[in-house]
Amino acid sequence: MADLPSRVDIHEEGPREGFQIEPGPIPTADKIRLIEALAGTGLRHIQVCSFVNPRLVPGWADAEATVAGFRPREGVHYTALWFNANGLNRALAFRDRLTLNGSISLSASEAFTRRNLNRSHAENVEAMRRQTALHQEAGVPVTRIGVMAAFGCNFQGDIRPEDVLRTLADGFRIAEEAGATITDVSLADTMGWATPPRIERTVGAVRERWPGPRLSLHLHDTRGLAVANAHAGLRLGVSRFDSTVGGLGGCPFAGQKGAAGNICTEELVLLCEEMGIGTGIDLDALIEVGRMAESIVGHQLPGELIHAGSLNAFRRRAA
Amino acid sequence: MADLPSRVDIHEEGPREGFQIEPGPIPTADKIRLIEALAGTGLRHIQVCSFVNPRLVPGWADAEATVAGFRPREGVHYTALWFNANGLNRALAFRDRLTLNGSISLSASEAFTRRNLNRSHAENVEAMRRQTALHQEAGVPVTRIGVMAAFGCNFQGDIRPEDVLRTLADGFRIAEEAGATITDVSLADTMGWATPPRIERTVGAVRERWPGPRLSLHLHDTRGLAVANAHAGLRLGVSRFDSTVGGLGGCPFAGQKGAAGNICTEELVLLCEEMGIGTGIDLDALIEVGRMAESIVGHQLPGELIHAGSLNAFRRRAA
Repeated sequence: MADLPSRVDIHEEGPREGFQIEPGPIPTADKIRLIEALAGTGLRHIQVCSFVNPRLVPGWADAEATVAGFRPREGVHYTALWFNANGLNRALAFRDRLTLNGSISLSASEAFTRRNLNRSHAENVEAMRRQTALHQEAGVPVTRIGVMAAFGCNFQGDIRPEDVLRTLADGFRIAEEAGATITDVSLADTMGWATPPRIERTVGAVRERWPGPRLSLHLHDTRGLAVANAHAGLRLGVSRFDSTVGGLGGCPFAGQKGAAGNICTEELVLLCEEMGIGTGIDLDALIEVGRMAESIVGHQLPGELIHAGSLNAFRRRAA
Repeated sequence: MADLPSRVDIHEEGPREGFQIEPGPIPTADKIRLIEALAGTGLRHIQVCSFVNPRLVPGWADAEATVAGFRPREGVHYTALWFNANGLNRALAFRDRLTLNGSISLSASEAFTRRNLNRSHAENVEAMRRQTALHQEAGVPVTRIGVMAAFGCNFQGDIRPEDVLRTLADGFRIAEEAGATITDVSLADTMGWATPPRIERTVGAVRERWPGPRLSLHLHDTRGLAVANAHAGLRLGVSRFDSTVGGLGGCPFAGQKGAAGNICTEELVLLCEEMGIGTGIDLDALIEVGRMAESIVGHQLPGELIHAGSLNAFRRRAA
């Protein structure tokens, strides 16, 4: 347990992930209400929207209205997602309220890259070169490499640690050529293939090769192992996680409908608390926001603590 | 990882746990169909019913018909649950097809004992003395001590390892006085308070004090940490788990409805497979049975693999 971090940063992606996948249109006011409530729980990193094509992702047609609408809270970093020059330009209009960082986004699975982006890996590397230049011209620092499908892929099967190392090496080459300093490396379990042994092998291999950058995990609970995977990551010193309140968001790559999405923020916070790792988050307040999210989307969310209550709530009752 | 077991025994409790909590009456033929399908997956221990008062648990009014109805499969142990002399007598009628073992069942939480049984712990110890004698008179060996609420309690709060040690000491005293040899100790997370650090502390303390008996965990996913807890248990050498296919069963002690029940057998099998631990179970066959369970109960079950599919299924597709 020598590697256990003393505190972790949680990047809350519930608004962005959740509202892009919900079928019904969610009123902008509800999105804003959720973002403001999340900021009141002690979360310091909240992804508030996706600047994507509204014809492809109608759930984020109101990205501008949402970002313009919430009252920013001091000390909280609000982030957004974009995939191209148009999205970047839309984000740049909100420099005053969004924390903008560029990311070199690659996939460890060639089959996933083709399926998701209709490009080869080599073509994607070229696209990331151009995108890195675009960000730098706009004054947006490129500080992060993200690797999708880092633990396995529904279209390619198993992904080995050496596949991830090779993908990351491509990312570091792009950064080096552009003179960008990478502070963060994110491994995403895009299709829910991670298991504790896979986390141990791949995170171990990445840390050994690049001990400098901070490692982050983006975990999906598609096969029910997300919390166990987070536990394995924490034991290896991973100190940053993406997650969504209530487990908002789903998985478009699952075999059948009804599959779970992201690791749930409440469960991650409970795990950290129990391990003596600080998060700065008030779990009971977060559970209340999870209940708000459930009422906004109008159906049961996968987050268990919403329904079971926290240990503290019962401790108080028992005392 | 020196303590990692080379194989684990899984005690499938889906039929018993699931059908006692479902609101609608489940036809006996469906119960039998599920039991027979489970036996075809490689599972070797299946709990098929509860011999309880049908007025209190109407879902098991057909316990006799269910046990009489299924075709036993060679090499599979079918078990049942009972709480008193009447239940034991009903079970004894099926000595030919059920594996009957007696259990000394205590709770580490006095508040839970009072709430659940309307007895003090001391009164419960007395009741277990009488029940042990009753089993021995019937020729049913008493080989197991079970501790409920071993990691925390909604009515009492935190449960410390020393509370569990004291409870177990009471159980071993009952066994010793009766001349019973305890081969199995089961720790139950009855209300979903377990977390990996709690598992490590309590399992560690129990193993240190009683290194002989096999340790078993009965985990609930009430707060989403069941698989992480199983992982922690496996790392400490726990080699027997109770679980339910599809996560059948719920939690009557949760703060709100919609709370999850037992750890899901499919997720446990996936975890073991990935850790190189044998279970003897065909995961893809088990997932099919989980889908059957879902169609029998008529609503979505919490087991994620039912909806996401196994890694092997996608591996074959990708190949």
